[in-house]
Amino acid sequence: MKHALLLTALLTAGLVRAQSDLTLKTRAYRQQHEQKLLDEYMGLLAIPNVVYDTAGIQKTAAYIANMLKRRGIDPQMLAGRTKGVPPAVYGEVRVPGATRTVVFYAHYDGQPVNSNQWADGLKPFEPVLYSSALDAGGKPIAAPRDGQAINPDWRIYGRSTSDDKAGVFAILAAYDALLQLKVKPTANLKFFFEGEEEAGSTHLNEILERHKEKLKSDLWIICDGPVHQTGKKQVLFGVRGDVNMEVKVYASKRPLHSGHYGNWAPNPAMMLAKLLASMKDDDGNVLIKGFYDDVTPLSDLEKQALAKIPPVDDQLRKELGFTKAEGGGKSLADLLMRPSLNINGFSSANVGKLAANVIPISATAALDLRLVLGNDAQRQVQKVIDHIVAQGYYVTQQESITDDERARYPKIARVVAKSGYNAQRTPMTLPIAQTVVKAVQSTVKDEIVLQPSLGGSLPLYLFDQILNTPTITVPIANHDNNQHAENENLRIQNLWDGLETYVALMRL
Amino acid sequence: MKHALLLTALLTAGLVRAQSDLTLKTRAYRQQHEQKLLDEYMGLLAIPNVVYDTAGIQKTAAYIANMLKRRGIDPQMLAGRTKGVPPAVYGEVRVPGATRTVVFYAHYDGQPVNSNQWADGLKPFEPVLYSSALDAGGKPIAAPRDGQAINPDWRIYGRSTSDDKAGVFAILAAYDALLQLKVKPTANLKFFFEGEEEAGSTHLNEILERHKEKLKSDLWIICDGPVHQTGKKQVLFGVRGDVNMEVKVYASKRPLHSGHYGNWAPNPAMMLAKLLASMKDDDGNVLIKGFYDDVTPLSDLEKQALAKIPPVDDQLRKELGFTKAEGGGKSLADLLMRPSLNINGFSSANVGKLAANVIPISATAALDLRLVLGNDAQRQVQKVIDHIVAQGYYVTQQESITDDERARYPKIARVVAKSGYNAQRTPMTLPIAQTVVKAVQSTVKDEIVLQPSLGGSLPLYLFDQILNTPTITVPIANHDNNQHAENENLRIQNLWDGLETYVALMRL
Repeated sequence: MKHALLLTALLTAGLVRAQSDLTLKTRAYRQQHEQKLLDEYMGLLAIPNVVYDTAGIQKTAAYIANMLKRRGIDPQMLAGRTKGVPPAVYGEVRVPGATRTVVFYAHYDGQPVNSNQWADGLKPFEPVLYSSALDAGGKPIAAPRDGQAINPDWRIYGRSTSDDKAGVFAILAAYDALLQLKVKPTANLKFFFEGEEEAGSTHLNEILERHKEKLKSDLWIICDGPVHQTGKKQVLFGVRGDVNMEVKVYASKRPLHSGHYGNWAPNPAMMLAKLLASMKDDDGNVLIKGFYDDVTPLSDLEKQALAKIPPVDDQLRKELGFTKAEGGGKSLADLLMRPSLNINGFSSANVGKLAANVIPISATAALDLRLVLGNDAQRQVQKVIDHIVAQGYYVTQQESITDDERARYPKIARVVAKSGYNAQRTPMTLPIAQTVVKAVQSTVKDEIVLQPSLGGSLPLYLFDQILNTPTITVPIANHDNNQHAENENLRIQNLWDGLETYVALMRL
Repeated sequence: MKHALLLTALLTAGLVRAQSDLTLKTRAYRQQHEQKLLDEYMGLLAIPNVVYDTAGIQKTAAYIANMLKRRGIDPQMLAGRTKGVPPAVYGEVRVPGATRTVVFYAHYDGQPVNSNQWADGLKPFEPVLYSSALDAGGKPIAAPRDGQAINPDWRIYGRSTSDDKAGVFAILAAYDALLQLKVKPTANLKFFFEGEEEAGSTHLNEILERHKEKLKSDLWIICDGPVHQTGKKQVLFGVRGDVNMEVKVYASKRPLHSGHYGNWAPNPAMMLAKLLASMKDDDGNVLIKGFYDDVTPLSDLEKQALAKIPPVDDQLRKELGFTKAEGGGKSLADLLMRPSLNINGFSSANVGKLAANVIPISATAALDLRLVLGNDAQRQVQKVIDHIVAQGYYVTQQESITDDERARYPKIARVVAKSGYNAQRTPMTLPIAQTVVKAVQSTVKDEIVLQPSLGGSLPLYLFDQILNTPTITVPIANHDNNQHAENENLRIQNLWDGLETYVALMRL
């Protein structure tokens, strides 16, 4: 009964469907300052921020610190115990009389880039405007001059345009808008920009532990990920966990001529193909023993929210250009509530112009396992390792294989896993969750989408475990943003919408 | 009976086992001129010769033409009908009173190189001496000064050190040795150096047809490939055919975030893994329907020669560092008499430091099919295509897939094959074959190895079809030469042995 009432409250919040005065004021402010907003954002995008590029990460952190300063906030670099890892850029705004404290989170580091894979003329760290998405025939547009209209359907191409400099920028631009509009936040605001998210947030625990007092709050709001594929704004109550693995299969010590040895020497690419093929059935169900065990069932409320998510499968299949999805007919929304195993890439010797008639010496696959509530990252990794062993492999973590190992084992695989992290879900029944939903809904006429969990991952379990504080994710990027890949982009309107969303969230 | 006698003649030729005077004279000559020989060879190796590098190919051809000139031979560039393809470098020596004409073939083009894959400090076109093989702990050696001893176990590292500039050089150095020793060849000699072998000898037919008269001869002797793995010299009476294929599997039009879409969006790397895995069983037997049909059985003589080949499987397994070969226990020598399917490489998105949490858009595999007598390249390719279709794929040759195709077919693969060529075998019963065996045997005390076919491929069927002339292959490179791959190398002693072999072959 209690659930049903709350569900009604949550899921009908959208029935108000009037845009608030604050939203309209924010829009008018933005329309007057589009050029200035874009200039500041382009400056942020031009700084290389690949998570493993120390120099670029430092520059990006310094640029964001400066953005805080320009807004009258004293920036702090929060480090953990370990030296030499990207700091979190932090700032806070105390609001007299506020009874709540909210931390706004985004991350400023980006995924690795392989420049060769980007479309002609695009460079990951030379952000450029396009008239529309590349695959809709978008063409480059010269930077608009002052006063020139900015089309909200334009896109900015570049690494982290969506993931997640958009989050950093939307949060800081929202605070700036409040300052300019002379509207006071209703809660104490804290800004926390992480610099190591794309490497698995390996040291976030240290930072949270060391700065526990400073980071005290009632809620973390996470700005990362895309809005719903229908274009509707969404509020997400959790994330999947994630852990990356690499599997490398070894064969001959030296590459062999495929004519002189083909049919006899073991082929590591074929061995890896067979190993990978053994992991999933033709419908994409994972065949690894126990892979779907440990899953915490969804609550009734979560199930009902899930059932209310607008179906997008047909639209997406068309947009993405395929007819048969994995999952044997289950919907995307349902499938994201299961743990998954993905091949992120594989490689052995060369293809294309560099292909040669050889039998390669090794073959490597990059995998990621997404985890749902109940899964444990290390337990899930162990299931994969056990499966590889069950296929007859000797499994080692060493890069170099000894002659003794080679003589002893017919099949050898190096399997390494990063530390990874578990899933997290904030109960949809929390009162503050309802407040967030109302705030986001106040910015749009369309009913917003509520999801028990994002398909993607963020280390939100840490906020729960270390700070004992709930997290709610409110994303802003367009869904077709190519995040994590070549040709990452952001639709300008999503930045403007995100600004309105975050202004509202600073008045919780 | 006739076969049995000839077999005896062929297979006991080695019983003489005395090195000829000519061999000993050649050795003494070489010992006096090692530095000069090496210098000329290093000069040849330093010229880039990747088959697709037009400028490098032209320079290499010009350098070889100059080598002919230095030996008093008028060099000619033989072209076919098609413009802009690598010419064959040709020269001839008429010998008064000779009753035979022999063409000596080698190719001067090389396989593509991926410099990143070469060992530290090695560059494909900066040939360098090593104290021994890299994986035996070899270290770089400064170029020896005049008079300094050259250790025959040293190796030269660089592209085409073995495949097949070694062939070009051994032939021309042998002719030079005859000149210096004032020993007349007994046959008219023709030199033919191809420049497009590593691209499948696509235009060799045109060259042979256009210059049919000029190329008239009794025999082509092919200098390519390695000596036997025991280190013994060998004579090969045929080659496997070869045809390269590329299979590219398509999924989403754009790369997807593996968190937001993993478990639902089709994964092309997994699709390709399953497709490749379906092609061979765990013992390496090809499962494609009819793959082993069409094979012309070995003659009794060929079977007996095969049975006499020294077993090397145990030695090789140890040397190459694996315990389980493909083929369910059959010997390497036997397996090379079967058609094969090899994965030369595969690729999808990225692994290692560039790996990202994506679902890739496509996955590509490079395959080569080796063919034996009776197979037809196009028929063999069609069997693979039929197999891919039988796995539910729509197969196209187009690189770009239309929206209509994407909407219509759940599984899409682009499959392209190069033209390739068929196998060839010269009957071991030919009298001239016996003469060649005797000549090679005259250079060593060890009994030489006779093989019905090389595992590798050369377009020898063309000499048969167009010129109606038999071919016999007499290789010189060390078997552990990494040909076609990174860290290609030649053992110096193999060059010296090759010189003696080819001097003998010019006195057939």
